[in-house]
Amino acid sequence: MASPPTAGTRPDDVRRHNRAALLRRLHVGGPCTRAALAAELGLNRSTIKTLVDGLAEAGLVLERVPSQRAGAGRPSLLVVPRSTAVVVLAVDVGVEQLTVAAVGIGGDVLGRRSWVLERGRVLPADVVDRVAEARRELAERLGADAMAVGVSVPGTARRSDGWVHEAPNLHWSDVPLGDHLTRALRLPVQVGNDADLGGLAEHTRGAARNTADAVYLSADVGVGGGVISGGVLLRGTGGYVGELGHMVVRPDGRQCYCGCRGCWETEVGEDALRRALSLPGDADRAAIVAELRSLAGDPELAGHRLRGVADWLALGLANAVNVLAPELVVLGGLLAALPPTVVAGVEEAVRRRSMVARASGQLRVSPAVLGAEGPLLGAAELAFEPVLAAV
Amino acid sequence: MASPPTAGTRPDDVRRHNRAALLRRLHVGGPCTRAALAAELGLNRSTIKTLVDGLAEAGLVLERVPSQRAGAGRPSLLVVPRSTAVVVLAVDVGVEQLTVAAVGIGGDVLGRRSWVLERGRVLPADVVDRVAEARRELAERLGADAMAVGVSVPGTARRSDGWVHEAPNLHWSDVPLGDHLTRALRLPVQVGNDADLGGLAEHTRGAARNTADAVYLSADVGVGGGVISGGVLLRGTGGYVGELGHMVVRPDGRQCYCGCRGCWETEVGEDALRRALSLPGDADRAAIVAELRSLAGDPELAGHRLRGVADWLALGLANAVNVLAPELVVLGGLLAALPPTVVAGVEEAVRRRSMVARASGQLRVSPAVLGAEGPLLGAAELAFEPVLAAV
Repeated sequence: MASPPTAGTRPDDVRRHNRAALLRRLHVGGPCTRAALAAELGLNRSTIKTLVDGLAEAGLVLERVPSQRAGAGRPSLLVVPRSTAVVVLAVDVGVEQLTVAAVGIGGDVLGRRSWVLERGRVLPADVVDRVAEARRELAERLGADAMAVGVSVPGTARRSDGWVHEAPNLHWSDVPLGDHLTRALRLPVQVGNDADLGGLAEHTRGAARNTADAVYLSADVGVGGGVISGGVLLRGTGGYVGELGHMVVRPDGRQCYCGCRGCWETEVGEDALRRALSLPGDADRAAIVAELRSLAGDPELAGHRLRGVADWLALGLANAVNVLAPELVVLGGLLAALPPTVVAGVEEAVRRRSMVARASGQLRVSPAVLGAEGPLLGAAELAFEPVLAAV
Repeated sequence: MASPPTAGTRPDDVRRHNRAALLRRLHVGGPCTRAALAAELGLNRSTIKTLVDGLAEAGLVLERVPSQRAGAGRPSLLVVPRSTAVVVLAVDVGVEQLTVAAVGIGGDVLGRRSWVLERGRVLPADVVDRVAEARRELAERLGADAMAVGVSVPGTARRSDGWVHEAPNLHWSDVPLGDHLTRALRLPVQVGNDADLGGLAEHTRGAARNTADAVYLSADVGVGGGVISGGVLLRGTGGYVGELGHMVVRPDGRQCYCGCRGCWETEVGEDALRRALSLPGDADRAAIVAELRSLAGDPELAGHRLRGVADWLALGLANAVNVLAPELVVLGGLLAALPPTVVAGVEEAVRRRSMVARASGQLRVSPAVLGAEGPLLGAAELAFEPVLAAV
């Protein structure tokens, strides 16, 4: 579609673009023969050779003879990213846990540290100290320091500078987390919303891989989402796309902490699941997941107890599908533990209710596959993006 | 953000990309000096010279000495697109009127034909015949035939082949309009939803110019939207993004023709405006617009009569802003005629209610500036896109 005038391309840009495209292909898709790289990127083999030689010289990839040979003739060499050659630090600031991981090119978690947190009582300064500690420890253990940092927070975070506007379940508001971390670590830092990053991870390495248009919906204490459209994670002004949980679906409904009444979050979030499952108000995440899993064996009971949640889930998803026209909805966080029969029922209801799903004839609803690792792996991707374009 | 691996760039691609970027700049931004083109596109002057010479030779642009000279020295030549060198046909299939226009590069409407339609009673075959007739007539008058066709319909249209799935107010369903037109005209045809195309036009030449993230909401018989995110009009699976009117906001509300109850359209569409203004059920578009305009002079009365519509407008827009994080909402169709005080009140309410608007601190709500021409001009842009990339 018509986009604003784009910049021209200079000859220098081409080599840089191709090198970045090749590295990104290896990072996302894993080891690949030179021949397949040429075909996938639409470049001739001599260009691929020059690019791969340059990356090998810089120590970013190595080449080896593939173990299995297909067909006759000289085997095409397999190009393998060297995972410790580019390492980023991924940080997941959860409500119950802080995790810091070193992630190498290719997406492998090379090492990690976690701290259990007293629910909603972690201070930004403590996060900064622990990340700095983990960085030193991991760098020593791996013999490779991180080149950049990506951070996931359960709240609204400004993309440009990592300013955390509101993270209600951490009791944070207006915290310059990006600045604090940049000063302490002297590394480029990017901060994103946990649901956005969960969506990014599912798109890069999970249930929404190779899917151009997908909506990721994650329910934990809050409900948020990430939106992939045309193969790209949407950001919007300030990077705030995807506060799906604060779509008002029931104007006469429950009061939400955001100030509105009847936000979707109040009908499909952690509290709503606790109510549906008759769990006490202090039942934690693990208890809710266990109860949801146990219902998988009794579809009738599952349908009965989760009917209300499923109805509101279908109503809100039909709204999201009408606005965004995804071909896939990925359910993350606690919703990934919904019994398969309930998910199938929600899918059927969304297909029936949404005008857009009826028109496109293509809509699937699937659980996330990366589980609680999603936001952490998404934070790593956030950090990798500029690094891979520049190394 | 991490996107899937992109293709590599070959040396041949560069010239083509730069030529298309330059043409697109002239098409959207109008005449421009060589020096300014070089600066805007980030290319050196010798590259610009080569590109402009090529375009001049092909008859697409001409160069002239600018009438006003700034500064000393030799004046930089002004590059002007020749509007009849690339002409497309724009078709707006409205509920009350069919319009066919010839639009030249640069966006000027070079000629047009319109037919008043009996409301909701136009047959696809009649549309095809009239478009063919208008094409012949306009080509003769201009001495230049169209190279492609863009069509706006008030319904869900599949981007790939122009299949119209549902256009309720035309009483069309499952009409292969793209195929019919392609066969009759032997030209490339693209079909889009009227609200999507209205949004595209406002983004290219109207209220949302130079705005990276915008939502266009248009109310006529139906309510639909177009979504610009990261400077690009979103499409989604099949091209069905933006059925904002079918977001359910009041589950116990009015029955909508789409099968759901409480769609936003039932609270802010043409019928809702008629009810608010106490107009009879057969009052047409012009009567509603006249009544809205007359209220501009009495803000107190306007606030009183339009309170319900304004409240539901603010609630739904806060939802859209929470999901999409635009910096601007453009109100089109009948909503462009809302009194300024009502629009200001809606803007204030959305800023207050939407968590995302509070976080970004940036949200404006403005009326569309292209009026009823929006979908027609957007249809032209739809047709221009591939043409300008290939000529």
